[in-house]
Amino acid sequence: MEHVADRLIEAIRSRKTPLCVGLDPRWESLPLEIRRRHWPTELGRGRAFEEFGARLIDVIAPAAGVLKPQCAFFEAIGPAGCEALRQLLARARQRGLFTILDAKRNDIASTAEAYAEMAFSFYNADRLTVNPYLGRDSIEPFLKVGRQRRRGLFVLVRTSNPGAGQFQDLRCQDQPLHVHVARAVEAWSRENLGRHGFGDVGAVVGATSPAELSALREVMPSAYFLVPGYGAQGGTAEDVRGGFRADGLGAIVNSARAINFPFPPDAADWESQVEAAAHKAARELGQLYFR
Amino acid sequence: MEHVADRLIEAIRSRKTPLCVGLDPRWESLPLEIRRRHWPTELGRGRAFEEFGARLIDVIAPAAGVLKPQCAFFEAIGPAGCEALRQLLARARQRGLFTILDAKRNDIASTAEAYAEMAFSFYNADRLTVNPYLGRDSIEPFLKVGRQRRRGLFVLVRTSNPGAGQFQDLRCQDQPLHVHVARAVEAWSRENLGRHGFGDVGAVVGATSPAELSALREVMPSAYFLVPGYGAQGGTAEDVRGGFRADGLGAIVNSARAINFPFPPDAADWESQVEAAAHKAARELGQLYFR
Repeated sequence: MEHVADRLIEAIRSRKTPLCVGLDPRWESLPLEIRRRHWPTELGRGRAFEEFGARLIDVIAPAAGVLKPQCAFFEAIGPAGCEALRQLLARARQRGLFTILDAKRNDIASTAEAYAEMAFSFYNADRLTVNPYLGRDSIEPFLKVGRQRRRGLFVLVRTSNPGAGQFQDLRCQDQPLHVHVARAVEAWSRENLGRHGFGDVGAVVGATSPAELSALREVMPSAYFLVPGYGAQGGTAEDVRGGFRADGLGAIVNSARAINFPFPPDAADWESQVEAAAHKAARELGQLYFR
Repeated sequence: MEHVADRLIEAIRSRKTPLCVGLDPRWESLPLEIRRRHWPTELGRGRAFEEFGARLIDVIAPAAGVLKPQCAFFEAIGPAGCEALRQLLARARQRGLFTILDAKRNDIASTAEAYAEMAFSFYNADRLTVNPYLGRDSIEPFLKVGRQRRRGLFVLVRTSNPGAGQFQDLRCQDQPLHVHVARAVEAWSRENLGRHGFGDVGAVVGATSPAELSALREVMPSAYFLVPGYGAQGGTAEDVRGGFRADGLGAIVNSARAINFPFPPDAADWESQVEAAAHKAARELGQLYFR
């Protein structure tokens, strides 16, 4: 199998867009057509999530090369949710999508290895999001398991939520905390570079300010960026430009709600609305970076 | 239902020890007697974890009032692991144990609420461990859901792993990062105090140095401490003294491996060895704080 960063880049190039489609199913937002056919029990919700996700994957796969399911929504409904998520990740792979499990896991030693097993073996995802607060020995076990299987990580560096700065922007020895984390990410990433110069450790960097994105691109030249905050969260295609290298590589841009739920609950043609939203976002982002 | 901190204190006082028993099942360490009766498939491992955990809960419940299962080991085996964990948490409650789900979750807005649903509704745990890196709007949704059900949190403040200092000890505006987190924890905790002066937001504080523990106790007078690093990880009962108030309240001390697996795999009397290890740890810690 190829290096995980090269596989990510292939998935992006094949669709000529850095769009990453988030998969954030919520029972209340599912099409009525689906909700009517499933009981709101754990099992019923699991099946409804699986049906919605499968149909969404089928219509977005030609537009975008990367899928990022949000673990929390599946876990909230118990084992049936976990099973649905596993099936959806398998379907995404069959459709040629690169998969990122957004689970923000963190722990140390054999506990971290157990989470890595969950992500890379049970769910068989290509990359996992992780939280760096516990320090290097909370990242290394994920890398150990991930590298055996050519998988990778996205480490939270600077997120896009309103309260992100409370700790991430604290000035520590003349630099914001998140720059210290960024330097560590760059060092981990350089340990295992693919042929495009990107490693297997990427960074979650919010589209909060274009200047900050450019600055972090310089601190982490080897790290692929996962940029949330596009679409429903208010960021525009121009806002994220700073995350990219001159050759159009370096970042994927996540959109979830605007592509998952662009329709009213009673829409009969919800799949074509999802498809249109995915193509629109893919085109907007693609025009900027793949001229 | 009583305030979550008061329920924790009741569980501690009823056994006269601040011992918290970790539940960290690993297939390779299970008694052979159990492994022989289950296939090493997902379902078989789930059943084996459930059997081991149930028998462990039954023998430790008279000795210790608090159980902390580690989510990762259950999640690594998929839906069967989640189901086993749910059953074990229910059994622990039936035995009068206070339950802490060690899952170190973190996210924002409705995603964080989904994790809170997982912890407090699906798993029905009393408290959940969470990671503070994302800032206040990653803690508040957990508090919102938790307070509706009188549940609580333990926020990672200063952990006990060798690399914990990489970020947690960075000096930020004249104080280590973890002291900034500690102050935020104290503020959240004071929002909802129980009758013993402790709130519903506690802190994970490693038994790394007795002086650090005492200092953090002063920064966070309202936060109950969850102290890892006792037993197999090398800490002694004296090392953790700084985490306690003069009245013996203020901290629970976790021991997992030394109580889960004090026996060789082929031991026929493994339950009595677990029981003895639990009583020994309970007594050591109890003598210090409940004279």
